[in-house]
Amino acid sequence: MKDPSGTHDQAGESTATQPAKVKDPSRARVGVGLLGCGNVGAALVELLAEQRTIIAGRTGLELDVVRVAVRSASRSRKVAIADGVLTTDAAAVVRDPSVDVVVELIGGIEPARELVTTALKLGKPVVTANKELLANYGAELYAAADTAGVDLLFEAAVGGGIPLIRPLRASLAAEPIRRVMGIVNGTTNYILSRMTEEGTSYQDALASAQSLGYAERDPTADVEGFDAAAKAAIIATVAFGARVLAGNVYREGISDIGPTNIAHAGRLGYVVKLLAIVEQVGRVEGKPELAVRVHPAMLPVDHPLASVRDSFNAVFVEGGAVGELMLYGRGAGGRPTASAVLGDLIDAAGNRYRNTWNPIGDLGEAVIRPIDDLASEYCIDLEVLDRPGVLAAVAGVFGHHGVSIRSMEQEGLDDQARLVFITHRATERDVQATLTDLRELEAVRGAPALLRVINR
Amino acid sequence: MKDPSGTHDQAGESTATQPAKVKDPSRARVGVGLLGCGNVGAALVELLAEQRTIIAGRTGLELDVVRVAVRSASRSRKVAIADGVLTTDAAAVVRDPSVDVVVELIGGIEPARELVTTALKLGKPVVTANKELLANYGAELYAAADTAGVDLLFEAAVGGGIPLIRPLRASLAAEPIRRVMGIVNGTTNYILSRMTEEGTSYQDALASAQSLGYAERDPTADVEGFDAAAKAAIIATVAFGARVLAGNVYREGISDIGPTNIAHAGRLGYVVKLLAIVEQVGRVEGKPELAVRVHPAMLPVDHPLASVRDSFNAVFVEGGAVGELMLYGRGAGGRPTASAVLGDLIDAAGNRYRNTWNPIGDLGEAVIRPIDDLASEYCIDLEVLDRPGVLAAVAGVFGHHGVSIRSMEQEGLDDQARLVFITHRATERDVQATLTDLRELEAVRGAPALLRVINR
Repeated sequence: MKDPSGTHDQAGESTATQPAKVKDPSRARVGVGLLGCGNVGAALVELLAEQRTIIAGRTGLELDVVRVAVRSASRSRKVAIADGVLTTDAAAVVRDPSVDVVVELIGGIEPARELVTTALKLGKPVVTANKELLANYGAELYAAADTAGVDLLFEAAVGGGIPLIRPLRASLAAEPIRRVMGIVNGTTNYILSRMTEEGTSYQDALASAQSLGYAERDPTADVEGFDAAAKAAIIATVAFGARVLAGNVYREGISDIGPTNIAHAGRLGYVVKLLAIVEQVGRVEGKPELAVRVHPAMLPVDHPLASVRDSFNAVFVEGGAVGELMLYGRGAGGRPTASAVLGDLIDAAGNRYRNTWNPIGDLGEAVIRPIDDLASEYCIDLEVLDRPGVLAAVAGVFGHHGVSIRSMEQEGLDDQARLVFITHRATERDVQATLTDLRELEAVRGAPALLRVINR
Repeated sequence: MKDPSGTHDQAGESTATQPAKVKDPSRARVGVGLLGCGNVGAALVELLAEQRTIIAGRTGLELDVVRVAVRSASRSRKVAIADGVLTTDAAAVVRDPSVDVVVELIGGIEPARELVTTALKLGKPVVTANKELLANYGAELYAAADTAGVDLLFEAAVGGGIPLIRPLRASLAAEPIRRVMGIVNGTTNYILSRMTEEGTSYQDALASAQSLGYAERDPTADVEGFDAAAKAAIIATVAFGARVLAGNVYREGISDIGPTNIAHAGRLGYVVKLLAIVEQVGRVEGKPELAVRVHPAMLPVDHPLASVRDSFNAVFVEGGAVGELMLYGRGAGGRPTASAVLGDLIDAAGNRYRNTWNPIGDLGEAVIRPIDDLASEYCIDLEVLDRPGVLAAVAGVFGHHGVSIRSMEQEGLDDQARLVFITHRATERDVQATLTDLRELEAVRGAPALLRVINR
């Protein structure tokens, strides 16, 4: 960060508008411009109305939603919005002089990117829940916010209502963080919970998630880990103060996981969870070397994340000073997400009024270690013909690639057998080479299943 | 809050010292005065040294510990402190012009209260971990901080390293919070975990806690719930923006809990935890009516707090918008607590430099509902002579006081029997009257044990 002073030099302020006008000397009125009024936006409008007196009493702020931009003005909405407030012109909301703070709930890259950038350049703080935008264009937006000297707050972008970004940015600002592991996608956690607790197939669990509204008709973004990968990039950026983009995140989804994989994991004392894992694995030329990935993994049943069920989210932080920390709650849904947006909105509005902001600071560069170079323990699940010499041949392949076996369980399936191996720590490269060679063995049937094992 | 503007009017500042001097234009040097250098203080000094580059890089702040006040200058310390920094005169540290921010880690009421008050009046932000001070004199200190326009931050006072106060103050500033339940004392959670998992007696579990350094030689403050009660008062104050003192908290400890109570709870699907419970139960004359209490309670095994084991702490928040939230981590220990202090210190130092602060705001009054008027489900554990008519007599006493029984289990003990009742929701007054009358029954042996049951 170039200038730790977040106090505005009034004389030098050319782009920023003046502070919100004060109607009542003991109260500050702050105009809120809302971009997007779907589930979260409607819940926010509702919550602002419900909590108006509490907010004014506790903070001295009167938050008024003065403009709301929507795609179609005729669509029916969950909340009543006064005449003259609703518009389909989002850019006009951003420019409106009565709008002091902009809340961006449109999602996606454009036009959100342009609207947020414009708002910041106009000196208006922005609160956003847009993970896609931040995971792809965060660095330029953070810089724009600091240049303008206004807040860009995004608690709702990761983990819905869970306070996560603020604790990482403030409470843990100087914590020597080692690793952050999160269950940050409720849809996949719901699906895996059904498969674990009821032995449901992936397809049935997905259908159940869809019928409950937890999964989209096209569930790709959730089940293939794209949503979690965007969140992993944001977590990595905030936790390590370094630029990490969605494209830097290694990603695997859960659509190949079957109930047998989960049952085997259970017998060995593990549960299967889709994890976003962000860790510092070293330093290269003075820069932090990070590993950032999303994939299903086996977690010991007594790990705090293992008991995070259904559509709940949780983020587990391992720090050199703070030790183990877990933040747990509702990762999605209108009201939980609106709760996080409201916390940010009050913060931004108060700072706007006080002419200050929470600087994000310069983000350093990070070196991303490729997945091939990462080490882990692995669980490999193999169907083989049940005949003499097969185990020796399989073990030979492991040995050839230097992958050491910690345990093996064999289960008979008529004339076939299933072998479940847990390896000692090995690199992904060696394990993938092992799998390639295993597939070549005549006695191996079907594709071997691989799950990474996380130990505390 | 009278004035939501946290920006200092420089001209009107008579007591506050000027902002920290800038050595390097891109860096702000902030002098830290440390009061107390025990476990937490030493860990803080160590952590500040380790993380110096990271802090400067991310925040632009150079935090220098310029003065350290200790009780005895000759005592050996875990960290080396430069000559001239150490003193036994705490008041001199507070007044020292090179001290921009004061960190109070002495504990107890005096001289901490006077030192903190003086620092605030001098316009110096204060970071404290002192739960006793805040639970008894918080209101006057918060007012002094807001009057001076400086931060009074106290993340470390509740839940050690767990970010809890900042999320409650900022992220959940306007959340319609219904209830906060916390495992906020690691000593008692360790003792109850040993009793639950190993069937240990209370005395043996306490001895084990003492040998590990988790419990003091005189464990009263922990095991009788005084520590948790102070924390409950602070949580209530922050969660509901209302004045709640340690003396307002109903308090029971765990020293009467036996392994049989825990075993019975387990058979019924519950675990026993010492909980600090803070909830809004109504409104009286426009003021929030709160119930604030600390006592052992039975929690369903699938409740997220039920899996908080050993000396870990966790706080479970139920909000009207955010839903269920849990914050989990290390509630004590030098480095975890120092981590929380450091987060606050960076926040306070940055605000000091930017000439702003996080206002606490006026705390409203709360009405405290007495324990007698609270309603709960109860588990009552009774030893009776095993003879005809006893159950009818016992049931008659429940009925007489309008306490309705949800379930009963009977267990034979030679010529005696043990009856375990779970009641429907009843008031404490009626249940206590029931217990009084039960003790009068000739067939009842010993004192009936009572545990409140928490259901989701």
